[in-house]
This record gives sequence, structure tokens and C-alpha cells, in this order.
Amino acid sequence: MNNLESIKYLINQNYDHVFISYLDFDGNPVTKAMLAPRKMEGLKYLYFSTNTSSNKVAAYLKNNRGSVYFVDKKYFKGVSLIGTVEILTDNKTKELIWRDGDDLFYPQGINDPDFCVIKFTINKGRLYESLKNEDFIVD
Amino acid sequence: MNNLESIKYLINQNYDHVFISYLDFDGNPVTKAMLAPRKMEGLKYLYFSTNTSSNKVAAYLKNNRGSVYFVDKKYFKGVSLIGTVEILTDNKTKELIWRDGDDLFYPQGINDPDFCVIKFTINKGRLYESLKNEDFIVD
Repeated sequence: MNNLESIKYLINQNYDHVFISYLDFDGNPVTKAMLAPRKMEGLKYLYFSTNTSSNKVAAYLKNNRGSVYFVDKKYFKGVSLIGTVEILTDNKTKELIWRDGDDLFYPQGINDPDFCVIKFTINKGRLYESLKNEDFIVD
Repeated sequence: MNNLESIKYLINQNYDHVFISYLDFDGNPVTKAMLAPRKMEGLKYLYFSTNTSSNKVAAYLKNNRGSVYFVDKKYFKGVSLIGTVEILTDNKTKELIWRDGDDLFYPQGINDPDFCVIKFTINKGRLYESLKNEDFIVD
């Protein structure tokens, strides 16, 4: 993969929010802002916290294709990561990403049924920088 | 439609960029930052300038479903507009959105074959504000 450093740089900035896409029940692509991923494993897996009751969880359970978009603050660089999503509700995974303060939103803690994990597996991507696009595959 | 004022407020901020989604050739939703729409007609049509040679144009010619996402600077509100895309290359439409300075990017002016228009027709949407989502239909 070329431009690996650029991709890592884009992903690892200290974002508040990133942009996640899913397919709605009619097959339309939909984008939403989302709290930045809480954990990353290699350049392969991203873990997000989310509400089990959210539309995107329902959408991903029907169609697991998704993408995550990172864009730098001055908007001159961006990377789309394209892959598949798993919705995980096991305690081991939930503990991986639980943070102090989460109980404000999930009063039952790790066991709160509305707290779940989006595990995003990156299969490929598209990097934009220096006014050019470059596609890449993630093995 | 409820919250019409919130939706109009979100769309009409003076954004540099918004976020547009399309389906790639494998059916994955993909998001990219894009220069804000140059023109809006009612709460129904958005017009963007883009490069005819871009991936998103090729994608929309294959599958015309798309969405546009507007998010306010503090990220506490956002609206996804979901609809269909037409790629327009007629001079009348191109003149609608042409601006001084565009010839820096399109040296042949309005007739530049790499200058085209994305006309986005809004069919429905989803508004996020005050920690709640609301779906709406656009007739």
C-alpha cells in the first residue's frame, strides 16, 4: 500500500467526530457524524460505541456494508475506509471500549442493553491528498 | 414537516464543505467531503459543481441514490438529506452554477468537458438535534 503514513496520520488525529455511512432499508447510502472510534487494531479494525436502539445498528444488522470517513481539519486531505460491520454485545468486547463517564449515558454500565459495539473491518479505501485520489486494499 | 426551520438553518449555514454519499460499484456506501452546493431550489433541489471524471460521477451514473449530510460546527445538530442524483452537462444548467474563478479549474470555461453538475433531488431526510432523531419526507 502506498501512502500508508498519510492514511495513518489521517486516522490518528484527535478527532471528536468522524463520519460513518450505512445503507438504509430502502438501499440509500446515509451518512452520520459519530464519536471517533475508541480503539483501533492495526489498520484493519475500528471499534465504536453506539446505542443498540439506533437506526444505524438496525441498518447494519440488515446490510453489513459500511464506510468511515476521516477528514483533516483544513479539509485538504481525507480518507474513506470501506468495509463491513459487526454489532457486538458480548461483555468482553464492551469492556474493551468502556470509558469512565459512560454510565452517564448507559446507567446499567457494561451490561446496559442499549450499549453496544460497532466493529468495523476495513477492506479497502480511497485516500485524497494533493488534489489526487488513490485507491488501496487492506489485507 | 416538523422542524422545518431547523432543517433550513442547517442547510443554509455558510459551509465550505458538506458530505456526500454514493454507492461504489461493489454496492458499498462511500462518503466524501465536497464543496458546498452552489444553488438550492426550495427544500427540494441542490446543485453541486464537480469533475466529470470523478469516481462519484461514474458511481451515480450506475446507481443514482445518494445523500448529502450537513452538520453544524459544534456537531450538536445534523441533517441527512436522502434522494437521487442526476449528472447534468447542458450549458443552461452549467451557467446556473458557474462562478468567476472556475476557469482556474476548468480552463475551457462552461464548455470544459470535465465540468459538470450534480443535481440532487431530496426525497426524505433525518434530522438530529437535542439528542433526538426525526425522520421527514420532502414532497
